[in-house]
Amino acid sequence: MSKLTDVPKRILIGRALRSDRLGETLLPKRVALPVFASDPLSSVAYAPGEVLLVLSIAGLSAYHFSPWIALAVVVLMFTVVASYRQNVREYPSGGGDYEVATTNLGPRAGLTVASALLVDYVLTVAVSISSGIENLGSAVPFVVENKVACAIGVIVLLTLMNLRGVKESGTFFAIPTYVFVTGVCLMIAWGAFRGIVLGDDMRAPTADFEIKPEHPGLAGFALVFLLLRAFSSGCAALTGVEAISNGVPAFRKPKSRNAATTLAMMGLLAVTMFCGIIALAAATDVRMAENPATDLVHNGVPLGAGYVQDPVISQVAEAVFGHGSLLFMVLAAATALVLFLAANTAYNGFPLLGSILAQDRYLPRQLHTRGDRLAFSNGIVLLAGAAGLLVVIYGADSTRLIQLYIVGVFVSFTLSQTGMVRHWNRLLATEKDQAKRRHMVRSRAINTFGAFFTGLVLVVVLVTKFSHGAWVALLGMCIFYATMTAIRRHYDRVAEEIAAPETPDDGTVRPSRVHSVVLISKIHRPTLRALAYARLLRSDTLEALSVNVDPAETRALREEWERRGIEVPLKVLDSPYREVTRPVIEYVKGLRKESPRDVVSVIIPEYVVGHWYEHLLHNQSALRLKGRLLFTPGVMVTSVPYQLESSEAAKRRARRRQDWSAPGSVRRGPKERSRDSSPHT
Amino acid sequence: MSKLTDVPKRILIGRALRSDRLGETLLPKRVALPVFASDPLSSVAYAPGEVLLVLSIAGLSAYHFSPWIALAVVVLMFTVVASYRQNVREYPSGGGDYEVATTNLGPRAGLTVASALLVDYVLTVAVSISSGIENLGSAVPFVVENKVACAIGVIVLLTLMNLRGVKESGTFFAIPTYVFVTGVCLMIAWGAFRGIVLGDDMRAPTADFEIKPEHPGLAGFALVFLLLRAFSSGCAALTGVEAISNGVPAFRKPKSRNAATTLAMMGLLAVTMFCGIIALAAATDVRMAENPATDLVHNGVPLGAGYVQDPVISQVAEAVFGHGSLLFMVLAAATALVLFLAANTAYNGFPLLGSILAQDRYLPRQLHTRGDRLAFSNGIVLLAGAAGLLVVIYGADSTRLIQLYIVGVFVSFTLSQTGMVRHWNRLLATEKDQAKRRHMVRSRAINTFGAFFTGLVLVVVLVTKFSHGAWVALLGMCIFYATMTAIRRHYDRVAEEIAAPETPDDGTVRPSRVHSVVLISKIHRPTLRALAYARLLRSDTLEALSVNVDPAETRALREEWERRGIEVPLKVLDSPYREVTRPVIEYVKGLRKESPRDVVSVIIPEYVVGHWYEHLLHNQSALRLKGRLLFTPGVMVTSVPYQLESSEAAKRRARRRQDWSAPGSVRRGPKERSRDSSPHT
Repeated sequence: MSKLTDVPKRILIGRALRSDRLGETLLPKRVALPVFASDPLSSVAYAPGEVLLVLSIAGLSAYHFSPWIALAVVVLMFTVVASYRQNVREYPSGGGDYEVATTNLGPRAGLTVASALLVDYVLTVAVSISSGIENLGSAVPFVVENKVACAIGVIVLLTLMNLRGVKESGTFFAIPTYVFVTGVCLMIAWGAFRGIVLGDDMRAPTADFEIKPEHPGLAGFALVFLLLRAFSSGCAALTGVEAISNGVPAFRKPKSRNAATTLAMMGLLAVTMFCGIIALAAATDVRMAENPATDLVHNGVPLGAGYVQDPVISQVAEAVFGHGSLLFMVLAAATALVLFLAANTAYNGFPLLGSILAQDRYLPRQLHTRGDRLAFSNGIVLLAGAAGLLVVIYGADSTRLIQLYIVGVFVSFTLSQTGMVRHWNRLLATEKDQAKRRHMVRSRAINTFGAFFTGLVLVVVLVTKFSHGAWVALLGMCIFYATMTAIRRHYDRVAEEIAAPETPDDGTVRPSRVHSVVLISKIHRPTLRALAYARLLRSDTLEALSVNVDPAETRALREEWERRGIEVPLKVLDSPYREVTRPVIEYVKGLRKESPRDVVSVIIPEYVVGHWYEHLLHNQSALRLKGRLLFTPGVMVTSVPYQLESSEAAKRRARRRQDWSAPGSVRRGPKERSRDSSPHT
Repeated sequence: MSKLTDVPKRILIGRALRSDRLGETLLPKRVALPVFASDPLSSVAYAPGEVLLVLSIAGLSAYHFSPWIALAVVVLMFTVVASYRQNVREYPSGGGDYEVATTNLGPRAGLTVASALLVDYVLTVAVSISSGIENLGSAVPFVVENKVACAIGVIVLLTLMNLRGVKESGTFFAIPTYVFVTGVCLMIAWGAFRGIVLGDDMRAPTADFEIKPEHPGLAGFALVFLLLRAFSSGCAALTGVEAISNGVPAFRKPKSRNAATTLAMMGLLAVTMFCGIIALAAATDVRMAENPATDLVHNGVPLGAGYVQDPVISQVAEAVFGHGSLLFMVLAAATALVLFLAANTAYNGFPLLGSILAQDRYLPRQLHTRGDRLAFSNGIVLLAGAAGLLVVIYGADSTRLIQLYIVGVFVSFTLSQTGMVRHWNRLLATEKDQAKRRHMVRSRAINTFGAFFTGLVLVVVLVTKFSHGAWVALLGMCIFYATMTAIRRHYDRVAEEIAAPETPDDGTVRPSRVHSVVLISKIHRPTLRALAYARLLRSDTLEALSVNVDPAETRALREEWERRGIEVPLKVLDSPYREVTRPVIEYVKGLRKESPRDVVSVIIPEYVVGHWYEHLLHNQSALRLKGRLLFTPGVMVTSVPYQLESSEAAKRRARRRQDWSAPGSVRRGPKERSRDSSPHT
């Protein structure tokens, strides 16, 4: 049946290339950095702008607070990076925040973290792609004029690429990320040189605009609240920092140390870029407003609905490099590309987290299988669908989408850091070595500060953004949480129901004999083979069973049976309505009623064909019968397949499907050689 | 999987009521008449109008030819009825034209007839419902103002009724049909009385209109062509006459004679009604035009696009009974109802013909099972979809749809009558008894004339209507023909491939031993049961097989295995990618390679759950493994089901589904008690 749904998929997605299994090689730091850092680094493309946007509400004068907000973000970034350096050292298995929270705070906290991260992956796709489109739009206006369509197009493209099983290579990440980082750093350096040494007056394209504040002269508590909101928006720069903690197994040895170093490098780069852009924005007089159409005024006239507000990074690049210059274009393209890569990160992380959750039975078990294509594809489609929905609802507006974004990350940060504090407490309770204790106390202090600070930010984010959209993210988390709890409860209930009794025989009657019944419609190779196999099984009784749906055919069957001298007795059931299922089921039930301790083994010859339309022409009665027999207690159902020539095609197809390897292998590290290498048998 | 698709179906269609099996009682003639004759009798509601419509092209003067055309239709009707009286006597098994053509002219002719009839069923639905809507619209203008929507509504209603398994009873047909027949006869009698005895001047609502002929003063060959076209349209009155030949088994004994008598009664009634309506239309000056908006003129002004042309039968009823009178209303309602019943006939006939074709392997075998709900439903949906498409394309305009209609019927008539001629020739070749010979010669003469006449009409229909839409019907026939040929070819190829060799062992190696392998993931009731069952089978070797996807779990499994002292050896396969399918398949292939004459029996414990969402949570790996194992030669795949508590729900559902009985049982006659009542075993 799955073949039916294969056809449209195949047309759209094409055949997966046979790619050799990835992840056999470990990542050096210089490759690990772009692989894991595209998400956090790319957020400097939108985070500075969001800060200015919020500040503009109180008017241009509030822009003076931007360095202080940048400073707060830097402090937070250092805190989070320092905290996660502890995480990667103590939990190097790749379980990340989910593992830390579950181990130290219990399954509910773990599940909360998981729900938060799942929501976050969806938002990473939506925000990164929307922002990528906006950045691309600063160079190619057409793109931003058809924002939603282009964003959906990119989502579809990424989805197809990932469904097809794109090969994720280090270079694939390295080039755009390094171009982006180099570009931004060059911009900062050149801007500083031009401004300080040459004394150039660099002016952003919006420098001449005035801001009509929505709440001019804001002061006191209201101003504090606004600054906190601006800070919350700036915190978007921190999303994705936790990704490395899921990827420790992919690093070269010493894994934890290399991961920690990479984390520090990433933090340093992010902070430099974030502050540099904020500073250049101030130096070039960038003007941003929440509602640019009404709040930005040029020569006393509002700009109107036609005005498209470019991202801060591209405005600064224009001021520094000059409008339409090559460097400006390259930076815009690299920015967009890094943002799309960041979105792609979520495509890899979502199914990976799913497989970890499946291991703990919060999601269907089959997701557990690494590289299970079907499960992986379902995850990808779910992610893309949810992200696409958000993009359409929010008009691919990164500013509106960011309101939903960081709730999940900070839920995850806070619970993970709290878990780490518990972790150290537990270790300290037994550790005697003073040197180690000192080290632990220091680590605990870092994580405690991290937990406190990220918790505070979480509260700030919730308070300042709840009504702006954070409630949507919370609702999404609740839905994931409830679904996963229900799945786990179902598995637990079933596990209880099927738990093996401790005593070998606790009163349930052990079967004593087997009646084998071979279903026969005609005499041909498949039925002869089924009969031959059935006889090998040496069950207590063996009979052939046919249903009389056509008297002439039945007569012919009987005659041939005798002519061939088949030794198995042939029993014919009457079926006035030409049904097959009902008479067989009733016969089997009758056998069971006569001798309830016995087992009935129903042996069904089946054709195996190669094309989906052939499926429609064969085995339908057998399929239905099998479906019904499964509900009949005390029955074994055996298929004896007969491979028709056409089945070769399907076999090849199945083999190809199996040779597929899931994207995202690079960041997951090499396949684990099973640690207890149990000798076979 | 089928459960997934069940949910929307169930919501829409509801649960089928448990209805006791129908068709146990045979039909007396007075019930058989309405059951079989609703289709041919209802066609008098549109056939007379079509004749006038075509004639109007040459102007009002051409109306004078209408009695002659009616006469031709009457002669044709008597010919066809007389011919089919031979058919029902000689072929009383219910196979109808398909059987006659196949037996006497070979499978290709049979398949042509079948294709023609399938197309015809689709058109019966489209034409009858469109005409029903037009008739209803003469009393309730709203209906005709929303023609397409209402027609689609009726199709949906009939489809749901038939999917749900409506109980078809004699009364259901009898009441509207007899009301309709009585109404029309009363109208003819009362009209004749008023016109001849009272000398009333009855005037149809369109009597004052003038016709602006499209081709005034048509003469010579063109006139003859037009008259032939009008005659072709009048032949729509003959559709459905062949239905009785499919229903002979439903009659009381003597079946054939009763069927022949009913056929004669039907012919007489149809002819009377057809001629009466044509005569009254002439008497009341009904004016019909092909394009009423431009071709009908009142006081020199064309009527325009707003004008709705009522059917002849309702115009006549208005003239005879008076506008808005009770009798007029009752007749309009009865006419619409009979037309909808005629459409319903196709819903019963389509799957019935499908089951006969499936018996000859032109359609998937499972359609053969009488009352197979799934197959039946697919047929119904296909029929409704095709009819709905035609209704939308042709704007529910019965006049345009009728151009497509009668091709199929006359293909069927002609081939069937030709077949009958052959039939008589064959019998005459051996028959010696002079009395019987005389009788045969007489019958042959009837069928020869029938074949000649219907063949002539077929040519006329094709020539006069090809470009008006008959090509669509021919195209449909070709598609059905090609599809059914392809299906038959596939079955033949497979049959050849799997044909049993005559000698018991023609070189194919007979299997010698069975290796049984029980798949184990954990120790619980389902696996313990599977192990217990497997041991009963006494195969040559038995081992338990587990795949190491999680080292800790595998270790626990080994420990419990030893602790419980399970005597079956446990083999663990390594699976670095946490896959299950591939290692098992490779292991099984390895076993086969070692000893190619042996058979591997893979025993899989399965959970049986009750809800579709539970399916998603269980057995996915098992399902995929089973799918792959079927492609591996030399393997038997055994499911040992373990019924979880929730499976009770699914069991009840399956039972209910099975208790369903297909509509249309009345016309198929009682279930055949299997004719060779072979003693069991």
